[in-house]
Amino acid sequence: MEPYKLTATEVIAQIRDGSLTVEDYAKSLLSRIEQRDPVVKAWAYLDPDLVLKRARELDQIPPDQRGPLHGVAVGVKDVIYTKDMPTQHNSPIYTADAPALDAGCVAVLRQAGALILGKTTTTQFAATVAGPPTTNPHDPARTPGGSSSGSGAAVGDFQVPLALGTQTGGSTIRPGSFNGVYAFKPTWGAVSREGLKIYSLVLDTLGLYARSVGDLEVLADVFALTDDEAVERREGVEGMRFALLKNARDVFPEPGTGTKGAMEKAVRLLRENGASVEEVGMEWPEFGKIPAWHRCIMSTDGRTAFLPEYRTNKEKLDGFLVGHVENAGGYTHKARLEALDGIGALRPRVDEVLGRFDALITPSVLDEAPLGIESTGSAAFNGAWTALHVPVVNVPGFCGENGLPVGVSLVAPRYRDRHLLAVSGEVGKIFEGQGGWTRKNI
Amino acid sequence: MEPYKLTATEVIAQIRDGSLTVEDYAKSLLSRIEQRDPVVKAWAYLDPDLVLKRARELDQIPPDQRGPLHGVAVGVKDVIYTKDMPTQHNSPIYTADAPALDAGCVAVLRQAGALILGKTTTTQFAATVAGPPTTNPHDPARTPGGSSSGSGAAVGDFQVPLALGTQTGGSTIRPGSFNGVYAFKPTWGAVSREGLKIYSLVLDTLGLYARSVGDLEVLADVFALTDDEAVERREGVEGMRFALLKNARDVFPEPGTGTKGAMEKAVRLLRENGASVEEVGMEWPEFGKIPAWHRCIMSTDGRTAFLPEYRTNKEKLDGFLVGHVENAGGYTHKARLEALDGIGALRPRVDEVLGRFDALITPSVLDEAPLGIESTGSAAFNGAWTALHVPVVNVPGFCGENGLPVGVSLVAPRYRDRHLLAVSGEVGKIFEGQGGWTRKNI
Repeated sequence: MEPYKLTATEVIAQIRDGSLTVEDYAKSLLSRIEQRDPVVKAWAYLDPDLVLKRARELDQIPPDQRGPLHGVAVGVKDVIYTKDMPTQHNSPIYTADAPALDAGCVAVLRQAGALILGKTTTTQFAATVAGPPTTNPHDPARTPGGSSSGSGAAVGDFQVPLALGTQTGGSTIRPGSFNGVYAFKPTWGAVSREGLKIYSLVLDTLGLYARSVGDLEVLADVFALTDDEAVERREGVEGMRFALLKNARDVFPEPGTGTKGAMEKAVRLLRENGASVEEVGMEWPEFGKIPAWHRCIMSTDGRTAFLPEYRTNKEKLDGFLVGHVENAGGYTHKARLEALDGIGALRPRVDEVLGRFDALITPSVLDEAPLGIESTGSAAFNGAWTALHVPVVNVPGFCGENGLPVGVSLVAPRYRDRHLLAVSGEVGKIFEGQGGWTRKNI
Repeated sequence: MEPYKLTATEVIAQIRDGSLTVEDYAKSLLSRIEQRDPVVKAWAYLDPDLVLKRARELDQIPPDQRGPLHGVAVGVKDVIYTKDMPTQHNSPIYTADAPALDAGCVAVLRQAGALILGKTTTTQFAATVAGPPTTNPHDPARTPGGSSSGSGAAVGDFQVPLALGTQTGGSTIRPGSFNGVYAFKPTWGAVSREGLKIYSLVLDTLGLYARSVGDLEVLADVFALTDDEAVERREGVEGMRFALLKNARDVFPEPGTGTKGAMEKAVRLLRENGASVEEVGMEWPEFGKIPAWHRCIMSTDGRTAFLPEYRTNKEKLDGFLVGHVENAGGYTHKARLEALDGIGALRPRVDEVLGRFDALITPSVLDEAPLGIESTGSAAFNGAWTALHVPVVNVPGFCGENGLPVGVSLVAPRYRDRHLLAVSGEVGKIFEGQGGWTRKNI
């Protein structure tokens, strides 16, 4: 098999047993990218010479000094600082800007031996829905989603096995679904956000992409994610308990055909495989306010976050973000505090309900990726979970009307990240095996 | 008067009317620093040639294109990124490190015309109490406090009129009191924290130093701080209502002689000047948990924040921070969530009580600055307010047993920053006039 097709776990094994060098692996990825990038356009910055230089340096490290990610390539969303590459935020204010700074997550990855491959495209500051030129690897007429457009597309297209994204609304989970890959938004605060451009301190979370849950677990190890309780390892989903949100319409819109079909099939497959799936309500009067509260927090945090760019380069700032700074939404501080405190009060209540189940199943997206790349699509199914700070995994495996991938989200209480990954691994085997959508080694 | 003695407001006026150039002003500050820095050691980085170059550039800007802070010098705590100077965090890991990045607050200041003078000393990552070499300008045998040691000392010593600090426990307010200056911790989230090294996302707040409340108001304008309601301007404190926390011993230790005297005198002076001062209780069972919750949040946020440095340079990381990463406190995620959610639930309740008054008066510090510079002192009176996200101003004017300055804190509900500054201005006139400690133009 061509090395570019390997998962991170497989790359680690082949480099460890000496059957693959980091340099040969890098060359395989670069040739894949060379072949595909003219169509997919997932990269905001990629310097093949730098990649090969770093790959050769990694090959020189003696085996007993190698880290757990030795040689594995990682794409980094271009709102995350990298000290040897530019960080441009898809903003004309920061064209070719290159502060010599590694984000905390990038420093941890490098120390673990990762090969930072390049910077992946994003919407402006990961804060708008205006797409970069990136296309969906499964259909170039469609969006890969956003704001982590390039990371989702590059992993879905076998250009890199792992990538970093961020999520403030649905910026990690949506591209996960549209590109047919696993996407993981850990518990808010569980991974350093040092060196990620700020949109909202309360909402922004690092996101992780891979083509297998095992790969996400390797990343979770590297980022020292732990649960309070040891994770029970089980084969299959027999006896697992899943929840469906009874009052989903209080916070989410009606899903489209692709997602409706995926949800129905997901429930059927879980039941056929011995799991229970039951409806659970979060029917508190405040629950329905979450979408409005999420918008208020995003907008009022954005008011503060983009003041520097507004003051120095207003004419180069996206109109949506100018609106945040100018408070186009007319939010008072009182409204902001009601949103912050209201969401805060719901978090432990939601945790308590989620804690009764192995995971809650909920849509990742409205439907398969829509036509056009101008808009990266709707985050309507994601913002509530982002605001609640709970971990979410997009599990792929289903198919929309036009043959594009559709995933569903699994959700667990805060700091049950490892449990959620373990459950997602078993669920993923079933969904990927019997859901109807198969990842092509394009 | 020597220009170095001027407040920011006075500098703005003199530059505006043409009686002072930025270059001459900068030369005066540099000569003050040259004379005093061998003793005070407030600067982690200062390049006089760069300062003079920037000053001359500012002098070239036509008057109609000048910003509101045109030519005013600002010191920047060395955990805040500046694109033309190193940012070293008082850490051997980052010696001479200089990512070409301006923090959001620095970008806003530059755009407003500020002259970024240099980087001020800090404890390691603003996260320990181990003092930098900086001494108290009023007694070189004593600490200037920390972690914003250099910013507090430089403003207190007339080396710069304005400076930026940060606060996670008491890192802004404590140096304010020890150095006899105004220190302002705005509402959490009101000013961009882009480009400030992270200790705790939930606690870290930018802090501001000045020798007059008018100067802090200029900064508040530049940072676009607003209240929901228009601020009522009054002369004097007649008719104002102040609160004292009845159950202070639930969260704070017994203050020392200097602070006890300052608090008593503060109450007497306010009453003599026509204000009311009444006791108010926050006697909820959870209130007493705030100090433990604050420690838990700081430690568990630090566990995530310093993982990158721990992984890459453990041997160069302060033992206290190694303890955070290794979870020396033995905190579970459950304990962390209880702390986060518990403090979150208290915030609106505390706001409600504070909202009945013009401000609450509470100690800033245990006492005047202690002897020795090894430790920057205790933050016992500050952490609760930091965790509650409320704005706090240290108002100087009182005197300890050894003649050193002692301030008291005024506290208001979240997002009443401008109201609090207006009140602090009137209170400050009284405390500075009759409190017993006078700032010498050393």
